[in-house]
Amino acid sequence: MPSAAVFGAAGYTGALSAKLLYDHPAFDLRWITARSDAGQRLDHLYPHHRVPLALEEFDLDRHADVDAAIVAYPHGAAAEVVADLRERGVRVVDLSADFRLRDGAVYEEWYRPHPALELLPEAVYGLPELYREQIRGADVVANPGCYPTAAILSLAPLARAGMIADVVIDAKSGASGAGRAATDATHFVTVDENVNAYGVPRHRHTPEIEQELAALGADVRITFTPHLLPLDQGELVSCYVTLNPGGERVDARAIYLEAYADEPFVEVAETPPGVRSVRETNICRISVHEDERTGRMIVFGAIDNLWKGAASQAVQNLNLMFGLPEGEGIS
Amino acid sequence: MPSAAVFGAAGYTGALSAKLLYDHPAFDLRWITARSDAGQRLDHLYPHHRVPLALEEFDLDRHADVDAAIVAYPHGAAAEVVADLRERGVRVVDLSADFRLRDGAVYEEWYRPHPALELLPEAVYGLPELYREQIRGADVVANPGCYPTAAILSLAPLARAGMIADVVIDAKSGASGAGRAATDATHFVTVDENVNAYGVPRHRHTPEIEQELAALGADVRITFTPHLLPLDQGELVSCYVTLNPGGERVDARAIYLEAYADEPFVEVAETPPGVRSVRETNICRISVHEDERTGRMIVFGAIDNLWKGAASQAVQNLNLMFGLPEGEGIS
Amino acid sequence: MPSAAVFGAAGYTGALSAKLLYDHPAFDLRWITARSDAGQRLDHLYPHHRVPLALEEFDLDRHADVDAAIVAYPHGAAAEVVADLRERGVRVVDLSADFRLRDGAVYEEWYRPHPALELLPEAVYGLPELYREQIRGADVVANPGCYPTAAILSLAPLARAGMIADVVIDAKSGASGAGRAATDATHFVTVDENVNAYGVPRHRHTPEIEQELAALGADVRITFTPHLLPLDQGELVSCYVTLNPGGERVDARAIYLEAYADEPFVEVAETPPGVRSVRETNICRISVHEDERTGRMIVFGAIDNLWKGAASQAVQNLNLMFGLPEGEGIS
Amino acid sequence: MPSAAVFGAAGYTGALSAKLLYDHPAFDLRWITARSDAGQRLDHLYPHHRVPLALEEFDLDRHADVDAAIVAYPHGAAAEVVADLRERGVRVVDLSADFRLRDGAVYEEWYRPHPALELLPEAVYGLPELYREQIRGADVVANPGCYPTAAILSLAPLARAGMIADVVIDAKSGASGAGRAATDATHFVTVDENVNAYGVPRHRHTPEIEQELAALGADVRITFTPHLLPLDQGELVSCYVTLNPGGERVDARAIYLEAYADEPFVEVAETPPGVRSVRETNICRISVHEDERTGRMIVFGAIDNLWKGAASQAVQNLNLMFGLPEGEGIS
Repeated sequence: MPSAAVFGAAGYTGALSAKLLYDHPAFDLRWITARSDAGQRLDHLYPHHRVPLALEEFDLDRHADVDAAIVAYPHGAAAEVVADLRERGVRVVDLSADFRLRDGAVYEEWYRPHPALELLPEAVYGLPELYREQIRGADVVANPGCYPTAAILSLAPLARAGMIADVVIDAKSGASGAGRAATDATHFVTVDENVNAYGVPRHRHTPEIEQELAALGADVRITFTPHLLPLDQGELVSCYVTLNPGGERVDARAIYLEAYADEPFVEVAETPPGVRSVRETNICRISVHEDERTGRMIVFGAIDNLWKGAASQAVQNLNLMFGLPEGEGIS
Repeated sequence: MPSAAVFGAAGYTGALSAKLLYDHPAFDLRWITARSDAGQRLDHLYPHHRVPLALEEFDLDRHADVDAAIVAYPHGAAAEVVADLRERGVRVVDLSADFRLRDGAVYEEWYRPHPALELLPEAVYGLPELYREQIRGADVVANPGCYPTAAILSLAPLARAGMIADVVIDAKSGASGAGRAATDATHFVTVDENVNAYGVPRHRHTPEIEQELAALGADVRITFTPHLLPLDQGELVSCYVTLNPGGERVDARAIYLEAYADEPFVEVAETPPGVRSVRETNICRISVHEDERTGRMIVFGAIDNLWKGAASQAVQNLNLMFGLPEGEGIS
Repeated sequence: MPSAAVFGAAGYTGALSAKLLYDHPAFDLRWITARSDAGQRLDHLYPHHRVPLALEEFDLDRHADVDAAIVAYPHGAAAEVVADLRERGVRVVDLSADFRLRDGAVYEEWYRPHPALELLPEAVYGLPELYREQIRGADVVANPGCYPTAAILSLAPLARAGMIADVVIDAKSGASGAGRAATDATHFVTVDENVNAYGVPRHRHTPEIEQELAALGADVRITFTPHLLPLDQGELVSCYVTLNPGGERVDARAIYLEAYADEPFVEVAETPPGVRSVRETNICRISVHEDERTGRMIVFGAIDNLWKGAASQAVQNLNLMFGLPEGEGIS
Repeated sequence: MPSAAVFGAAGYTGALSAKLLYDHPAFDLRWITARSDAGQRLDHLYPHHRVPLALEEFDLDRHADVDAAIVAYPHGAAAEVVADLRERGVRVVDLSADFRLRDGAVYEEWYRPHPALELLPEAVYGLPELYREQIRGADVVANPGCYPTAAILSLAPLARAGMIADVVIDAKSGASGAGRAATDATHFVTVDENVNAYGVPRHRHTPEIEQELAALGADVRITFTPHLLPLDQGELVSCYVTLNPGGERVDARAIYLEAYADEPFVEVAETPPGVRSVRETNICRISVHEDERTGRMIVFGAIDNLWKGAASQAVQNLNLMFGLPEGEGIS
């Protein structure tokens, strides 16, 4: 049984990763680490996860004796520890943005100087529905952002069909997407009975979505605007697609049904999906609608931002990397 | 002091209208009516409104002895009672859609056969920021829909400047927008921890928004998609505007500040407004942002759907119609 | 593999029972029935449960060919169908109150005339932590009410120790406890940002709690008051226990730790439990505190009202009845 | 027109106090101060309050030139500034606990060493329904805690009638009661879909409630346990009263109706009040119920913790102190 560790397990996505691996029938979770919460047991911080392990301060010499790792560090900090782990031969799924953008210059434009550019070519973008085969052989998998996961899955069939001329993505997320840090913005009284946009007009998930749409054939500049909602887990992307003018008339729903017929974690629904229907699952639920008045396609995609948008997708990737059934421990 | 009545006061917007008129220093609220709740006191149905009046079954002979009325009937049912009240000389603000669309054919395409087409030319669209002078002299005011109120105020300055080539409006509303009827869709367990689109792709507020944008100079077909959020009161429209290509570069924020400099109930904010900031007010709070990467303008508008989106705007209209200070009873 | 059916699967607890049995590795869910929703697929009503079976109208001849049934009918209606199923040899867990009270006269005082009194002696109260052995051999198990489950587990150790002279139970429940019926009381706008008591002063769960406390040695009249909270799933009982005066000083926490040391689904916590920590689990999480100023014991017990308070406890009972591992399908 | 200041206006209760005084027709709000937010405008921190004043760092020489002050400092820190303000002749309502307990020794047992014991005799407990006349002449008014406000008003009629032998108070509060500090405990994800007790078994509001019940004739040790609910504003106390055995049978509701017949801000309801019915009001809404089975009285009291539980009650006190109509600015 492969051994595993979660580095940065005190945040929401790291803690859920730890829980999924702790309960996983085919991984042996050996270490969980954290910085300021080191010394605490995870089931003290997150009683509902019921992981009776203690968080330790990260020590490469002590903790790199595992086959697999999920790294849940902040952007910028992750790249270095991923590089260290790779040197020790650990196969890594990284939850940060550090290895998602294949072009280091784009990363540095939207984030910061990249501390491990040399690893970029090796990293595989961890969206199994797009890169399943590459993930199987990868040693470094860059787990997608939560918004990109929902957006790319929602748009991929149209992008592949060459139909996208332009797209506006209006995204809505629960408060867990903002992370565990206690701030004015995450205070209950701020979020409750409220909704507002943030990251306007340049949210960092924009280039990640554009990169993958381009890889699918839609080389467009998107407008992407996230909003914070008064709910804890769940994310909805509402995608407004202007079609390429020359395109012939198609049955969009048929394209989606075909595209995702064999995907265990994508559902094509007839009506606009609610995030409740995917809560605490690895599923992305999508519906597509044609607006005959304007000729636009409207696509909705719902995920759980902590699950398919982060931790359970990381486990899905680990399953692929280690030759396990893809849904093991997350179905 | 002008006397007033609210017909259809058992629903959310009618009840709030009754509360605002009951507390109003310059109106004498004489009658409140309802169908299935007739006989009950309003402060039994809505303790927080504290209106100690009994709901009566509507009786034209008995209840038309007032100077002013707010009609809060369903679409289709409102037109007839408005016509009856007009015959008796009552000046009316109608909360339904029945007199909002100036073209009866458009109404009948989106709603149903119109029972009082002859009144359409007389009705004034009750958005004071656009039609203040006409409202003063009107006998029938068609109170705008909640989504159109927020959308039109958010887009008017750009429309007037001739800048709008195309617009996508992604709207988010609290559950009170769905009305008081208890259904699967309004059950707490359905709405809580959820978000989903509805009315896709043809929500009935679409032609109302298009009518007013056209009147302002933007003759466009819009994409309008509302979403239901887990909060009670509040509505946010996120408007994604593709600019007319020939247009010169402008400072959008300056245009908005100038357009609304003298408006008592429109705020131009620097950051995306949250609906909490307008809860239980007659205010629409707007911010405008340029997305330099795509050239789009992004405009956010927040209102309270029951207040500026319905009842307090109705009172604002009544104030204008009766020569009172515009903000009396709603500031 | 024993075959199973859920009768009354369109409500919240019936639907969850169906989901748990559908996913259960050792039961074959053959039938799900409903009255007004017959003909619909359950995954249409409850997308998140992902049970692709159609609800049928109940037909004893057709549906009684199973080994096990969960009956989720309203009080009063359940007894008859349970009696019918017993005649056909089906072993039943009944989610209603019809077989919980061992004294038919008490049932009829709090509920209504009982249609199957003759079955009462046969029924076992389905709280495994109290009646595990009897449940194994039972053919009719009366699944406890949600509040009694939390209250009895919270008080049992003190009751057994003869310490309880008097008890006030202040209970708080999420809105799913009110069931799926869409009413004014379950409308989102009613529940949101609100809390209020209901069923004052005679909630029907009172005699059920008193019956079991008496069986444990505490023959007291309790005060039990439930409150409705703005959350969907979760129930907390706050129990204020006046101790018997003659009692010697004890370490309450030690008593609880010992009482529940071997219970797989009861946790004894150091701090007051939140309902989040037991959401979507079969676990009851309890803490006990001594108030030295007043000499009272304060005990908190948290469950998920739909899980341990209904459906997962029903499956726990079925597991016992059919000789399966107690936690199969619910851990 | 008396001039006023709010010291400590960056927290929830201080900010609301500032808003109420800014909008007040008979006070001139001259200064608002804060420590870490000094320099910011209040309408930036709290857009919905719409107070366009800048927060300043407190400077006794500069800011003590007012007739009235509301002090919203933390416990312990308030006493000193109140003493300083008194030296300059400012009449003060203090929102902290520093002057609520008439016995300095009790204060020091539950809080900390008291820095201004000499002022205690001068301070009046600011519950107008109990101490209206004393408040009129007071120079230092100790504004009651939110829980004590609701609890004392709920129990006063029974206490005065000599009926209380024992009482358990189970209190429920929205998250604004925890204050503006961003912590793990106030993070949206912690509070949402949750409920738990805190401050068990010794919450600091206990002696304050006991002091006032004793003053009314009920010299009892109470059990008081607060719970945190997923809502922003609102507080409900559920009071379980064991009656004095010798007492004669009375009509409790009649006692309450009589006790509060002339109180503008207390409502006696027939059914258990919800906190929605008092949101953003200065009203305490109470219902009383007899449990015939146990002989207990059950009393519910609902307030808005930020309004009647803090800021609007402070203004009510100021109105009394300055000879203004008691409800000015808060009705």
